[in-house]
Amino acid sequence: MQIQVAVAKIGKYASSESGDSLEMIERPHGGLSFVLADGQRSGKSAKAISHLVASKAIALLAEGVRDGAAARATHDYLYLHRRGQVSATLNIVSVDMETKTLVLSRNSHCPVIVQMAADQQIRLEDPTPPIGVQRGTKPQISELPLQVGMVAVIYTDGVQSAGEQRGQPLDVPLLVAKLYAEHWGKPHVAQAIADALLAEALRRDEGRPRDDMSVLVVAVAAGNGDEARRLSVTFPVPPLFRP
Amino acid sequence: MQIQVAVAKIGKYASSESGDSLEMIERPHGGLSFVLADGQRSGKSAKAISHLVASKAIALLAEGVRDGAAARATHDYLYLHRRGQVSATLNIVSVDMETKTLVLSRNSHCPVIVQMAADQQIRLEDPTPPIGVQRGTKPQISELPLQVGMVAVIYTDGVQSAGEQRGQPLDVPLLVAKLYAEHWGKPHVAQAIADALLAEALRRDEGRPRDDMSVLVVAVAAGNGDEARRLSVTFPVPPLFRP
Repeated sequence: MQIQVAVAKIGKYASSESGDSLEMIERPHGGLSFVLADGQRSGKSAKAISHLVASKAIALLAEGVRDGAAARATHDYLYLHRRGQVSATLNIVSVDMETKTLVLSRNSHCPVIVQMAADQQIRLEDPTPPIGVQRGTKPQISELPLQVGMVAVIYTDGVQSAGEQRGQPLDVPLLVAKLYAEHWGKPHVAQAIADALLAEALRRDEGRPRDDMSVLVVAVAAGNGDEARRLSVTFPVPPLFRP
Repeated sequence: MQIQVAVAKIGKYASSESGDSLEMIERPHGGLSFVLADGQRSGKSAKAISHLVASKAIALLAEGVRDGAAARATHDYLYLHRRGQVSATLNIVSVDMETKTLVLSRNSHCPVIVQMAADQQIRLEDPTPPIGVQRGTKPQISELPLQVGMVAVIYTDGVQSAGEQRGQPLDVPLLVAKLYAEHWGKPHVAQAIADALLAEALRRDEGRPRDDMSVLVVAVAAGNGDEARRLSVTFPVPPLFRP
């Protein structure tokens, strides 16, 4: 069995940076957690919020705090420090090797999609407020046993609303099912689905994303016999002008 | 310009988990930091130490603490909590977008290798103690302007000493220069170098690593026009036995 995680993200067009933050941490009892936060608005102010939120959640998870408690505590922290006036969406996705489960925690209006097989899709889409604004906010949590064939797809607002302004909205659940059918069984299924979903969202916005877009995909694939863990990160850097 | 970061790591043969920890965090002023820690001994006790060390360093970097201060503070923390009796190596590698530099902080007997061009190699190899055991331990720090063509290679003990017991030691600096010449200019240069270096270290230990092995590679490549940031993680999971 092999866990694959892939992230693809891009900032709003003509904005200096993405307001979404993605962080990763190793769980003290085994496994990995990923935190995806989308701060209110875009650009630097959104980034400041999402970085604060993601760092707080990561610090709690690093100490062994369980996911639901970490989401609640991160809400409380943001609610206190910004006096209930600033919101952020927060998704925590954990591959928990102690319980052998995928733990999905969600405070967002965007659903979380879990494709279990080509013809079986679970959607977490209960109405769930973002964190930071309503006292006592709780996440929607789902815990699923890890099994070969499952692919979870988590994404932010910019993907959800891609193309809407141009009358060509994106049906993300439908697209995920299609991408699953197309890519399942290939070696880098998580990366392929993340890249294809981001590319389609970008296409709907005609190459100029109207909001920050992030996609996080976790896939449980059959093992390939290689014992190594691997991580790869690539990011573009604007040309450097040095004085 | 594109930053590529790749990590490949594997645990000691027949050990339940790697005693090395690798964590990543986004820097609040822009850029990314990577922390690689190798705890004394191997298996669970080493993992507990390296996780503690890496989490502490990451938490400090997330708050905007500068790298040298984060390394010193992490030492102080380990020294206090384990009464100077437990050591760990600590490398912090930052792509700092505020200063447009690569910041290399090192508390390890393993050198850090920076290949600037096919015929130019910088080695950071001052005698530097691990953290945790000597009062007032400081890191060796080097800060290099980001420029296309540079590749930094950081690794732990298990790579350094691969093959020694079998009389076939690995000359890592020489191998890095060779791999640079072979892979520079290809699309995934960081991943190619990390994978090839780990594979060669494994080969020297005849497929049964005598110690935890981790390789971290940061490459500054020419841009490819794609604006997206990407992250990919893969890790093997032993077969799950559920009661």
